[in-house]
Amino acid sequence: MSYILVVNIGSTSLKYRLLQMPGGDTLTRGYIERIGGAASPYSWQTGRHKGSCKLDTSQGTIQAISAMLDMLVKGAGATPPVLRDINEVAGVGFKVVHGGYSLRTSARITEHVLACMEDFSRVMPAHNPPYIQAIREFQRLLPDTPLVGAFETAFHRDMPDYASVYGLPYAWTEQLGVRRYGFHGASHRYVSERAAELHGHPLEDLRVLVCHLGGSSSLAAVQHGVCVATSMGFTTQSGLPMAKRSGDLDPFALPYLMEKTGKSLQEILDVLVTQSGLAGISGLSGDMRDLEEQEATNPRAHLAIAHFVHEIKKYLGAFAAVMNGLDVVAFTGGIGENSARIRRDVCADMDVLGIELDDRLNDNPDGERCISAPGSQVAVYRIPTNEEFIVARETLRCLAEQQGGTVSDYSSRN
Amino acid sequence: MSYILVVNIGSTSLKYRLLQMPGGDTLTRGYIERIGGAASPYSWQTGRHKGSCKLDTSQGTIQAISAMLDMLVKGAGATPPVLRDINEVAGVGFKVVHGGYSLRTSARITEHVLACMEDFSRVMPAHNPPYIQAIREFQRLLPDTPLVGAFETAFHRDMPDYASVYGLPYAWTEQLGVRRYGFHGASHRYVSERAAELHGHPLEDLRVLVCHLGGSSSLAAVQHGVCVATSMGFTTQSGLPMAKRSGDLDPFALPYLMEKTGKSLQEILDVLVTQSGLAGISGLSGDMRDLEEQEATNPRAHLAIAHFVHEIKKYLGAFAAVMNGLDVVAFTGGIGENSARIRRDVCADMDVLGIELDDRLNDNPDGERCISAPGSQVAVYRIPTNEEFIVARETLRCLAEQQGGTVSDYSSRN
Repeated sequence: MSYILVVNIGSTSLKYRLLQMPGGDTLTRGYIERIGGAASPYSWQTGRHKGSCKLDTSQGTIQAISAMLDMLVKGAGATPPVLRDINEVAGVGFKVVHGGYSLRTSARITEHVLACMEDFSRVMPAHNPPYIQAIREFQRLLPDTPLVGAFETAFHRDMPDYASVYGLPYAWTEQLGVRRYGFHGASHRYVSERAAELHGHPLEDLRVLVCHLGGSSSLAAVQHGVCVATSMGFTTQSGLPMAKRSGDLDPFALPYLMEKTGKSLQEILDVLVTQSGLAGISGLSGDMRDLEEQEATNPRAHLAIAHFVHEIKKYLGAFAAVMNGLDVVAFTGGIGENSARIRRDVCADMDVLGIELDDRLNDNPDGERCISAPGSQVAVYRIPTNEEFIVARETLRCLAEQQGGTVSDYSSRN
Repeated sequence: MSYILVVNIGSTSLKYRLLQMPGGDTLTRGYIERIGGAASPYSWQTGRHKGSCKLDTSQGTIQAISAMLDMLVKGAGATPPVLRDINEVAGVGFKVVHGGYSLRTSARITEHVLACMEDFSRVMPAHNPPYIQAIREFQRLLPDTPLVGAFETAFHRDMPDYASVYGLPYAWTEQLGVRRYGFHGASHRYVSERAAELHGHPLEDLRVLVCHLGGSSSLAAVQHGVCVATSMGFTTQSGLPMAKRSGDLDPFALPYLMEKTGKSLQEILDVLVTQSGLAGISGLSGDMRDLEEQEATNPRAHLAIAHFVHEIKKYLGAFAAVMNGLDVVAFTGGIGENSARIRRDVCADMDVLGIELDDRLNDNPDGERCISAPGSQVAVYRIPTNEEFIVARETLRCLAEQQGGTVSDYSSRN
C-alpha cells in the first residue's frame, strides 16, 4: 500500500488529492484558487470533514503548496491530519500536459523532463509554465520525495502514424515533432476502461468513443484499447472549442487577423488562449452553465452552444467512420457529466450511428450509468472521470519500474 | 444563345473554355502552362481539331491572353476560328476564389470587387494575386466585354451560422469576416445537381456528400440542395491535405515552427502553401499518380496516401453525422474521377454509414456512373466535374440580372 499525492496545477489554482494505492481510495482532497492574492479561497475534504479558509498566497504557489502539506500532516481546525510525516508520501504525481514526442509517457521528473516541457511553454501558455514553476517548488519543499509527471499525451502514443501526421514537410514531423499528440489522456484512459467494465465486455473487444467535455474538451476513439484518433492536435488549443480557447482554426486566419487588427502574432495567440472559444462566440461566458441559463434570451449564447454541439457531432461521426462503428459512447468532464442538455443535443438525430438516448435516464443527474434507450445499437454512458486515479497508478508504476520491480512489489515495500 | 468564355487562372497557367449557353456545349478549349517563359506549352481543342505549340510569354499573362483571343477569332494552322469577332463573346466568367463575406456570390467585376479580392491576397497567395493580375489584363484587352467573377464561396453561403463560425471573439467573425467559407463551389454545385439527376430524385430530397479530390480537395455536405458543412475553412489552406498545401493544422504549430526553424511567419506560411500536403509528407510528389506508383517501395508515399484517405474518411463520417445519414456520395476532381484506388480505400470498412462499393464498377475508368454495390444503402457515383458550365451559367445569370431580365431574355437578346 502506498500513499500517492496527485497534483493538478492551473494558471492560478492548485487541486490535490491523496490516494491510497493501488485501490485508489481518497484520504483527502483540496482546492486552492486565485493564487497570487492575499485571500485565496482554500477548500478541502478529509473523510466526512469539510472545511474552507482564506490563504495568503501573495508570494505565489509556494504558499499554496506549503498550506497543502501542512493540511496533510497537521490538519486544520476540526479536520484531522491524514499523515504522521510527509515522508509517508511515496510519490507526487503531476497531471502534466505536453512534453513533446519523447515524453508521451509517465516519467520521473528530471532536469531533462523540465527542459522538454519548457520547450512547449510558448505554445502551451496555460499549462506548461505553471506546472514547471510548481514542480520546482515541490523540488525545494520535498527534496526527498520522488516526483513523477504523467503526461496527458501518453494515452495517444499508439495512434497510427497516418492519424498523427500533419500535411507538413516530413522533417518538421520527424525532427521537430510537429504532429497530433492528443491530450486529456488520463481521463480518456479511465473512462474507456470504466465504460468497458460497465458494459461488461473487455475493452479489447470494443470501439469506445470518449467525450471529455469541460472547460477544455476532447474526443478520443478507443479501438481494442488503443486510441486511434483524437480531436486535439499539436496543442490543447485545437479540436473542439474550449471555454476560452479557440479550438480548430485555419492557421491562415492568423496573418489576416494581424493585418486587420494591427496586433502582433503573440497578441493574437494570447487572444486565442484567453478570450476565444465559447466565451469568444457568446461574448458572455465560457461556462456552459451560464450559456444554458441565458440561451433563451441571448442569441449568441445559443450560437456558442449550437457550434459546440455541431463540432462534437462532427468528431463523433468522424471517429465512428475511422472505427467503422461504435459500441459505446461515454460522456465525462464538467459538461459531459453535468449537462443533460448537451448530451441530448449531441445524441439527437444520430440514428445513422445507431445512437438513441433515453431522455429519462439522461435527465437523472447522479452517478455512473447507462443513459441510452434499450433499443439503442450503441450504449451510451455517463461516467464521472477520475484522472487522479490514473495519475496515481501511473506514478506508482513509474516508481516501481525505476526500482526494477512491479507495482505490487513496490506497493508492498512501501 | 450566348457565347461565354470561362477562364481559370493558376499561378503560372491559364485554362479557358468557350461555351454556348444555356446548353453548355463547348466550342473550344485550351490550356497554357509555364507562363513567364519563352516557350510556354499551349494546347487546344476545337471540335475534332487538336493542336499545340510553344508561346513566348516572357512578358507575362497578357501574352497568353492575347494568344487565346487570337485563337478564338483566327484559329491556328488546321484549327479554324470559332468566332468572327471577339465582341461575339457576351461575357467572360472567372472562377475566382475568395472575395470575403460580402462577395459570396457571382458579381460583375468592378474596382470594389478587385479591392475585396486584394484584401485576401496575402492569405490566398496561390489564387487571388494571379486572378487580379489576369483580370486587369482582360480589362485592358477587352474593354467592352462584361467580366464576371463567380466566387467559389457562393455555394456555401447558406451554411448555418453554427457551422461557419469559429471559436473566436465574435467581433472577428462579424466585423472582420474570419469564418468558414468553403471553396470549390462550382464543382460541388455541378456534381450535387448531377448526382441527383443520375440518382433520379430531386436534389431537395437528398443528402449528398460531394468528394472533390484533386490537387486541391474538399468535401461538401449538401442537404436539401443547401451546403450545410464543408471541409475548407477561412482559406483554401485548410481541410484535407492538398497536393502541396497543408490542410488542417493546429495554428499553434506556427509559433513553434518559427522558434525552431528561425524562419519568419511569412516564410513558414510560404512553406505551408508550396511544400506541404502530400508533397510534404511524401517528400516525393504532390501528384497522386506518382504516389500510387511508388507506394509499394516508398513508405512515405504510402504514409501520404494513408493520411489522405484517413482525413477523407473523417470528414465523410463527420458530415454523415451532421446530416444524420447519406443518400449519395459522389467522387469528382482529378483524383476523385481517376483514382479507383483512393475511392476504394475511402469506401472500405464504411458499413457504419451504409457504403459499399462494387469493385468491378469502381475499376471501370470511364464515364459518369454508379459504382456502389446493388445492396449498398448509399449510392456512390463517379461524376466528372464541369466547373466551367456552372461559371458560364452564373455569368449569364449575373449579366441578365444586371439588365433586369431573366437568363432566357438575355440569351435570346444576345
